[in-house]
Amino acid sequence: MKLYHAAGSPNSRRVRIFIAEKGLSIPLQSVNLGEKEQLSDWFKAINPRQQVPALVLDDGTTVAEVPAIWRFLEETYPDLPLLGRDATRKALVSMWECRVELDGFAPTMEAVRNAAAGLKGRALSGPHDYEQIPALVDRSKRRVADFYADFDAHLEQAPFVAGDAFSAADITALVTVDFATAALKMPIPEDARALKRWYAAAAARPSAGA
Amino acid sequence: MKLYHAAGSPNSRRVRIFIAEKGLSIPLQSVNLGEKEQLSDWFKAINPRQQVPALVLDDGTTVAEVPAIWRFLEETYPDLPLLGRDATRKALVSMWECRVELDGFAPTMEAVRNAAAGLKGRALSGPHDYEQIPALVDRSKRRVADFYADFDAHLEQAPFVAGDAFSAADITALVTVDFATAALKMPIPEDARALKRWYAAAAARPSAGA
Repeated sequence: MKLYHAAGSPNSRRVRIFIAEKGLSIPLQSVNLGEKEQLSDWFKAINPRQQVPALVLDDGTTVAEVPAIWRFLEETYPDLPLLGRDATRKALVSMWECRVELDGFAPTMEAVRNAAAGLKGRALSGPHDYEQIPALVDRSKRRVADFYADFDAHLEQAPFVAGDAFSAADITALVTVDFATAALKMPIPEDARALKRWYAAAAARPSAGA
Repeated sequence: MKLYHAAGSPNSRRVRIFIAEKGLSIPLQSVNLGEKEQLSDWFKAINPRQQVPALVLDDGTTVAEVPAIWRFLEETYPDLPLLGRDATRKALVSMWECRVELDGFAPTMEAVRNAAAGLKGRALSGPHDYEQIPALVDRSKRRVADFYADFDAHLEQAPFVAGDAFSAADITALVTVDFATAALKMPIPEDARALKRWYAAAAARPSAGA
C-alpha cells in the first residue's frame, strides 16, 4: 500500500490524520502540486482525476476520494474505529462528516480556489479547467462564518462533532479550521466558546501534527 | 422507522431507490417543499438543517444526509449490498459515488438553484439564505456536459459505475441524469453510447420508479 499525498493539501491531511489516529504505518509518496505534478502523465495513470490523496493498494487498485480511502482503511483495520462503532453511530458519523464537508470544508476550498492568482482558470481541482467566479469568494466566506456559528451551537451539546467519541467528522472539522485560518485569515471567532474548547482538544491530539 | 421525503426531491429519490433495491418497506411521510414545509418549526425539530430526506429511527434519532441514511440501511439490512461486498469494493463504491455526486449531481443542483426564479435568495438549501450567482449557471452546465463525457468514457470499460455490480453509485448517476434532463434540458448526448447503454439498463430496473 502507498499513499500519494501533498504536504500542503488539506484533503491529504484528512487522510494522514486518520492514519495517525489508527496508529498505522503506510508509506507516503509526495506529489509536488507547486510543479503541477498531479497533472503529469505518470500521476494521471494512478488517478485520472488528477487529485491527491490517492491510496494504491497492493493489487494495484487506486482508491481516491477521502471518504473512500477512509472506508478502505476502517474496513481493513477496524481497531480504533473512526467511522462509528454500530449502525446508528456509523450513520451519525457519516451525517456529521458530510455536514462539515458541505458547510465548512467545501466553502473554504471554494473561497481559496476562486481567489488565488495562481489558480486562475483552475477554480475546481480535477481534469477540467474552469474560470474563477469572484462572487463566490464573498459568498463562501459568509458560509464559513455561518459554519462557525452553527458548529459552535452544536458543540455546546456534544463533546465531539458526531457525539461522544472522536471520529472522522472531527478530522474534517479540524482541517477546515486550520485551512480557513491559514488561507482565508478566518480563525474561530473569539466568542465561539464551545467551538474553541473543541478545537483545543482536537488540535492537542498527536495526530494533528500529521 | 419513518422516512421524511418529497416526491420531487432528487436527494429523496436517491434514498427511495436504495430502499426499493433492498426490497424494504419503510413508512414514508411527505414534506411539502412547494409550501416550504421543510422550513417549518415542526420539521426543523426533526432535521435542523431543514432538508429532506431524513430518516427517523425507532429510538427517535434523526439520520439525515443521503450517504448517512444509506449507511444505516446497509448496516441494518446487509442483504443485497449496495455499498460494496468487501473492503476494496466498499472503497470503490464510495469513490465512484463521491465522483458522481461531485461532478454530476452537485453541478446539476447548482445550475437549477442558481437559476430558478422561485429560489431567489435560496441558492443553497439549508438554514441560511444565500443570493443566487448567475455566473454559476453556465459553469455548472459545462460541468454537467463534462460529467457526461467523462462517464461515457468510464462506462466503456465497466458495466456499472463502480465496476461489476449495480451500487449506490449507479443510483446517484441515474437520479442525476433524470434531473439534468428534466430541469436543465440536458439529456445524455446522442453520441455517448456507453452512457446510454448503462442508462437504459439502470432505468429499466423496477427501483427506478421509486
